[in-house]
Amino acid sequence: MIISTKNSGISAKELGTAAKQLESYRRHLVSVQEKGGFDDLECSINLPFSTHLDAILEKAEAYRTKQLKMVVVIGIGGSNLGTQAVYDALPQKSVEMLFLDTVSSARFSLVLEKLTKHLKNKKQFLIVSISKSGGTTETMANTEALLSALKKPYGDIRDRLVVISDDGSKFSEAAKKQKIDHLGMQTKVGGRYSVFSAVGLFPLAVAGFNVHKLVEGARAAVEDGLLGDTTQNHALVSAHTTYAHAKKGRSIHNTFLFAPELESLGKWYRQLMGESIGKEKDLDGRIVHTGITPIVSIGSTDLHSMAQLYFGGPDDKFTNIVSVQASAHVSIPSKLVFPNMVEHLPRKSLDELMSAIVGGVTATYQKLKQPFLSIELEAVSEKELGYYLQFRMVEMMYLAQLMHVNAFDQPAVEGYKAETKKRLFK
Amino acid sequence: MIISTKNSGISAKELGTAAKQLESYRRHLVSVQEKGGFDDLECSINLPFSTHLDAILEKAEAYRTKQLKMVVVIGIGGSNLGTQAVYDALPQKSVEMLFLDTVSSARFSLVLEKLTKHLKNKKQFLIVSISKSGGTTETMANTEALLSALKKPYGDIRDRLVVISDDGSKFSEAAKKQKIDHLGMQTKVGGRYSVFSAVGLFPLAVAGFNVHKLVEGARAAVEDGLLGDTTQNHALVSAHTTYAHAKKGRSIHNTFLFAPELESLGKWYRQLMGESIGKEKDLDGRIVHTGITPIVSIGSTDLHSMAQLYFGGPDDKFTNIVSVQASAHVSIPSKLVFPNMVEHLPRKSLDELMSAIVGGVTATYQKLKQPFLSIELEAVSEKELGYYLQFRMVEMMYLAQLMHVNAFDQPAVEGYKAETKKRLFK
Repeated sequence: MIISTKNSGISAKELGTAAKQLESYRRHLVSVQEKGGFDDLECSINLPFSTHLDAILEKAEAYRTKQLKMVVVIGIGGSNLGTQAVYDALPQKSVEMLFLDTVSSARFSLVLEKLTKHLKNKKQFLIVSISKSGGTTETMANTEALLSALKKPYGDIRDRLVVISDDGSKFSEAAKKQKIDHLGMQTKVGGRYSVFSAVGLFPLAVAGFNVHKLVEGARAAVEDGLLGDTTQNHALVSAHTTYAHAKKGRSIHNTFLFAPELESLGKWYRQLMGESIGKEKDLDGRIVHTGITPIVSIGSTDLHSMAQLYFGGPDDKFTNIVSVQASAHVSIPSKLVFPNMVEHLPRKSLDELMSAIVGGVTATYQKLKQPFLSIELEAVSEKELGYYLQFRMVEMMYLAQLMHVNAFDQPAVEGYKAETKKRLFK
Repeated sequence: MIISTKNSGISAKELGTAAKQLESYRRHLVSVQEKGGFDDLECSINLPFSTHLDAILEKAEAYRTKQLKMVVVIGIGGSNLGTQAVYDALPQKSVEMLFLDTVSSARFSLVLEKLTKHLKNKKQFLIVSISKSGGTTETMANTEALLSALKKPYGDIRDRLVVISDDGSKFSEAAKKQKIDHLGMQTKVGGRYSVFSAVGLFPLAVAGFNVHKLVEGARAAVEDGLLGDTTQNHALVSAHTTYAHAKKGRSIHNTFLFAPELESLGKWYRQLMGESIGKEKDLDGRIVHTGITPIVSIGSTDLHSMAQLYFGGPDDKFTNIVSVQASAHVSIPSKLVFPNMVEHLPRKSLDELMSAIVGGVTATYQKLKQPFLSIELEAVSEKELGYYLQFRMVEMMYLAQLMHVNAFDQPAVEGYKAETKKRLFK
C-alpha cells in the first residue's frame, strides 16, 4: 500500500505538531503490543500476532473438504462486514459465501433457494452463526429460521453449524451444551475491530482464502502504525489529516474506491468510523454530538452519479482516493464495431482506462483545490487487504484520540434496541 | 405509497407558504403535461403517458423468447441505475440481468463467465448497450470488449445487441448503418430522468417485468405531483421539507430503507439528488456551491454500523424512513434450538421483526427530536416502485426550484472527462 499526502492540504509542520500531540497515545499502543494479551481496550492490535490463529485454522481445515460448496455467514455489523469485505474483493472463489445479516424474507428466500436447489447433501454447506453476545435479534432469528427451514430437506443439521461468540457467553454455553461446534472470541475485542479474530478468519479460511497472507499484511500495518517516524506512520498521518479537515468543516469523509469489488471494504470502514467517533459525549462526559459522516463512492460508477455534487457542490468533504495498480487484463480489440465514438479506445485494456480515469479525477480535485489523500494498493490480494483493514483500525484509534472520544463503545445504539424489544413483546 | 410528515418538524403553516412559493412552477409543470411532447426541460413527466410505450413493448416481445436466460445491460449512471433499482427490488426473476457499468476486469470476467459457462447458444442472451450520446467511455469500452470476447464462442453476435441512444446520435446512426437493432430516446430527457423511456422500460420488459404496472404507478405520481392541494401533493411537500432542513444546516439527506432489496433504489436517488441540485452556480449564474449530500442506509443492517453516529453524532441529517408493509413470509419455529437468547422470537415472522425494528427506530428519532419523513410502500411491486421513482423525480424538480438551481444540467462533470481523455491520448 502506498499512501500520498501530497494533495492533503496538510503541511509537514502541521503533521509534526500532530505527531507530538499523539506521542503519548502512540507509546500506549506500543506498550499494549509489547504486553500482548487481550485485556486492554486497544487489544485488537494483538490479534494478528496471536497464537489463536492455529486453533482457528485447525478447525477450519476440518470443514474445508472437497465436497464443501457454500458457507453461510449469519451475523450483522462487526460480525460480517469484515468477512464480506474480503470475500467480495478477492476474485478466486472456490466456495461460495452467502450472507444473512438483516431480517428479510426476500434475502432469506434467496439463501434458502441456493442451499436447497443447488446442493445434494448437508456436507456441501456450512453455517457459521456469529454474535458476540448471542443477544442479537437478527442473528438469532436468521439462525433459528434457517435451521428450521433446512430440517425438511436435510434433517438435523446441527453438525453443519459453527457458533462464534464471546468466550463464556450464553450463546457459547448453549452451543457447548448441545455439542454444537463453537469458537470463542476475545471479549474485549469489539465487533468492528474483530476481523482478525475467529469472526473473520474462520469463515474466510473455510472458504479457502489465504488467511496467513491477510494476517501478514495486518502485522505490517500494526508495525507501521506504531512507528515514531511520522513520515512512515500512515495510520497516524491519515488520522490527523481527516481530523484537521473535519475541524475546518469538512464533516463528510468520502472513501472513493476505484475498483467496484472494493465496495464492501468501504462499507466495513463506514461502521468503523461511524461507531468509533460518532459520539454524544466526549471522554470527559461532556455533551458534544461529534462525528464525521463516512460515505463510500465507487469509481467510475459514481462519477456518473455523484461527481456533479462533489466537484460543483459545497466543499464539505475530505476524500480518500483508493486505487489499484493496473494489471492489464481484458482488452478492447484494434478493430471496433462502433469506431469513432470515443477516441483512443482500440487496444486499451479496461484497467488502463480505469487508471486514466483515476488520473483525470485526481487532476480535477487538484484543480478545484479540494484536498484528498491518495492510497494505492499494489493489487487486490489478501496481503494488501490485510494491511488496509489493520491500517484503518489503528488510524481510527488515533482519530478518536484526536477527537477526544472513546473509540470502543457505542452507547447510542441501546435506545432503539430497547424500543424494538418493547414492540416485539406486544 | 403512504407518506407522513407528522415527524418532519415542518408545520402546516410553513407548508402552505412553501406551496405559494412553488405555485407558479407547479402551474408550469401542469402546462408541460397538458401540452405533452418532449420539448420542455421537464418533459420527462410526459414519459408515462406517451405512446412510445407500444413500440418499446413490441420490440421487447420479439426478444422475450422462452430460450432467453440473460440480459446484459451495458450503461452507466442514468443509463442503468433505474433499471437496476427495479430489478434488484423485485423478487420474480425469470431472466437474469447482468450489469456492466464501470471498466473493471473483475466485473467483466464475472459477466463473461456467466455468458460462456452457463449458456449454450447466443439466443439465450441479449445485450442492451445504452448511451445517450454514444460518447460514454465506459459503455463503449465494455460494449467493444464484450462483443470481441463473445466472438470466439458464439461468432458474430451483432444480432444479439440492441442499442439505445438519443434519436439521431452517432451511436444510433452507426447501429442503423450496420443493421444493428436500436431504439431511440428523447433528446431532452436527461439520463437521471429517463427510467420511463426505452432506457429503463425496454430491458425490464425483455426480462419479463410488468412495465405496464410500473408506468401505471408513475402516472399516479405525476398526477399527485401536480395537485394544487398541498396536503395531497407528496412531491411538493417532500421537496419543501428537505429544503427547509437543508437551510437549517441538515445538509445530508439520509434515505433509510428498511428492506435490503431496495438498496439500488437508494443509489438511483443518490444520482437524482446529487446531479440535480449539487451545483456551482445558481439560476442567475452566481457562484453558490450549493447541494445536499444524499446517503443511503439499509435497515436493519446499518443500525449495526451507522446508528451510533446517527443517534449520537451531529444533527446534520434529514432522514426519510422508507419501509414496506409486513407480509409475513418466513417464520421462526415455536421450538428454538437456542432458547432464551432473545425474548419473544418464537413464531414471529422475519417481516414482523422488521416492523418492530422500524417502530423502534421511529420512536428513537422522535425521542431524540431528530426530524424525519415516513414513507411506507404497500408492497415491493412494479406499481409501487413506479410511483416512488416518479414521485422522487417530480420532488427533485420542486427542490431545484426552491434551491434556485437548474435541475437538468451537470456542468461540473465535464472537467474530469477532459482530464481523463488527455490521459487516454498518451
